[in-house]
Amino acid sequence: MLDHDVIDLGIGEPDPAALPLGQLRQAAAHRLSNADTAPLRYGPEEGSASFRAMLAEFLTRCCRVPVHADHLMITAGASHALDLVLSRLCRPGDAVFVEDPTYMFALDIFRDRPVRLVSVRVDEHGLDVDDLERMLAVEAPRLVYTIPVFHNPTGVTLSVQRRRRLMELAVEHDFLVVADEVYQLTGERDATPPPLRTVNGERVLSLGSFSKILGPGIRLGWIEAAPHHVARLRDAGVLHSGGGASPLMAAILESLIDLGFQDRFLGDLWEIYRARRLHLVDVLRGVLPAEVRFTTPQGGYYIWLELPSRIDIMTLSTQAAAYGVGFRPGPLFSRRDEFTSHLRVSFSFYNEERLSLAGERLGALLRSRL
Amino acid sequence: MLDHDVIDLGIGEPDPAALPLGQLRQAAAHRLSNADTAPLRYGPEEGSASFRAMLAEFLTRCCRVPVHADHLMITAGASHALDLVLSRLCRPGDAVFVEDPTYMFALDIFRDRPVRLVSVRVDEHGLDVDDLERMLAVEAPRLVYTIPVFHNPTGVTLSVQRRRRLMELAVEHDFLVVADEVYQLTGERDATPPPLRTVNGERVLSLGSFSKILGPGIRLGWIEAAPHHVARLRDAGVLHSGGGASPLMAAILESLIDLGFQDRFLGDLWEIYRARRLHLVDVLRGVLPAEVRFTTPQGGYYIWLELPSRIDIMTLSTQAAAYGVGFRPGPLFSRRDEFTSHLRVSFSFYNEERLSLAGERLGALLRSRL
Repeated sequence: MLDHDVIDLGIGEPDPAALPLGQLRQAAAHRLSNADTAPLRYGPEEGSASFRAMLAEFLTRCCRVPVHADHLMITAGASHALDLVLSRLCRPGDAVFVEDPTYMFALDIFRDRPVRLVSVRVDEHGLDVDDLERMLAVEAPRLVYTIPVFHNPTGVTLSVQRRRRLMELAVEHDFLVVADEVYQLTGERDATPPPLRTVNGERVLSLGSFSKILGPGIRLGWIEAAPHHVARLRDAGVLHSGGGASPLMAAILESLIDLGFQDRFLGDLWEIYRARRLHLVDVLRGVLPAEVRFTTPQGGYYIWLELPSRIDIMTLSTQAAAYGVGFRPGPLFSRRDEFTSHLRVSFSFYNEERLSLAGERLGALLRSRL
Repeated sequence: MLDHDVIDLGIGEPDPAALPLGQLRQAAAHRLSNADTAPLRYGPEEGSASFRAMLAEFLTRCCRVPVHADHLMITAGASHALDLVLSRLCRPGDAVFVEDPTYMFALDIFRDRPVRLVSVRVDEHGLDVDDLERMLAVEAPRLVYTIPVFHNPTGVTLSVQRRRRLMELAVEHDFLVVADEVYQLTGERDATPPPLRTVNGERVLSLGSFSKILGPGIRLGWIEAAPHHVARLRDAGVLHSGGGASPLMAAILESLIDLGFQDRFLGDLWEIYRARRLHLVDVLRGVLPAEVRFTTPQGGYYIWLELPSRIDIMTLSTQAAAYGVGFRPGPLFSRRDEFTSHLRVSFSFYNEERLSLAGERLGALLRSRL
């Protein structure tokens, strides 16, 4: 088996073959045939009124709860959104609570801002609100950053009871919750709670993105939050100077939504990822040793595997290439270097045939070590 | 005269009628007809190799000095570039020297980062290096931010002698120079020194942008710097997470340059802005009272007027609408609220006919007050 044939289940991005080149070509042609040059000019810091209105309609259809245009702030993706929130709503030295494990690159974004991180545990029901409460006894966070739906890397979704408790604690201890909900539209409907801000619209800033439902290279996303939060976020120097995150790309996506492409594309994508998710879960059930436990996600991109503690995941990671398979070792997702016996695999990037092959290789690797 | 007929010479942006809708439509069609989905994926933090190579060729042609692809880092415009430099190269509490006056929104970008600003004077030859030297005796800056060519708001260009002295001081006092050179390609060739980094490539980070030579809503720019600086800049959490500033927009501009549109457009734009610049200078010479002094810029977008000190510019600003004209008062460009008898006008936004009318109105306003 050759190295270049490695199937890297670590890749947590959309399948390149499923990216909407044609739809974007049509949307760009549509928008740029219009004589209005506004999208080429400096725009409002929060994004154009017409795009925010179009996005609000789209989200209202997809999330099945009303979304208002004046609660939307356009960003250059969820990463930019998180950085913007840290810039505008935190002071140097503020404490920010993060899940452990959490999205690995979110940790890099926090590193670039002068905030202090405090870790809170995650279990099969999402953020552990009891652990959160223990931490609140010793630290007063400005923000709690959570991925409440189809969590990266664990795939779990915050339960309805915990959502209520989290927002009660936010009121009691006066903090804001940054809900990274980029996987909100990727899962089983009956396993997808309404967005967290439906529990408390005043204290949640919801991060959304076209990266997972259209294509990451587009670099467009949004923050949904109460207008007084939007007012603070829009007052960023970079946005004053640049005139909004990305007026031209937003205008092209406005056409894309208007032409019906985004709704149809999301429907197709949903079917593709659902089939792959069910398939990889099936494959793993068949090939993994009984000692290996894993979540059965209802959406998102990821499955989180827990191996017996005698396995060191970093060592296993270096051995995986020889088996023609890759994954992301657990410690990448932890600022405490925990999860040394965990790994994340993704089902978004490869088709079923490749997922079968990768699953078998992963099974062979693990059987050889257990 | 009605308020809605105000000609606002304060607007420092390209003429909407001159924005390249058609060229962008063709470039998008060209790029998105290609089956390669790479621009829709997460890209390298510094931008794609192919776009950096295309940009390097374009800049080499236009700047008439060699530009290397591995010295380029793609950004979402010069504002994003400045913020990125502050994020990656400054620590909290670092001193940053800025010109007084300077680009007004740069001050907002600095405000959002935990740096301490120190002001340095500007005169008709650009940054006052003697004043800089006095400041260096009391403070050790990490960065000096300068607009060395067709300065905003004053229109002046840093002289060749001062460029050398600035870079000598940078070596002696171990600081980096952030050269905001977004107007580099907008002026008379014989009045445009080579980019500042030709004096010292190790200590200059040059900020460039398509905003002034294509359209601001595109939100794409670059930093040109030595590869070791690029390596530090690319290691930003937001760029890890997002996969570069704007892969899809960069790919569309790659086609735009490849198809020859950017070179032709820049040539056309150069003619337009040159004619307007000469025209507004002529108009102002004819209509302004003799007590009003102003720079005669050789490029850029701006003319800086100095009124007698008995005039308060903020008061004048509120009186201007009644005369059907607008401008930007000097104190906007100063963190010390100086330049209370200065104002900035721009010749980029309106055609000659409107510039004539606006100039006459401004003359009438000033004559009524002097």
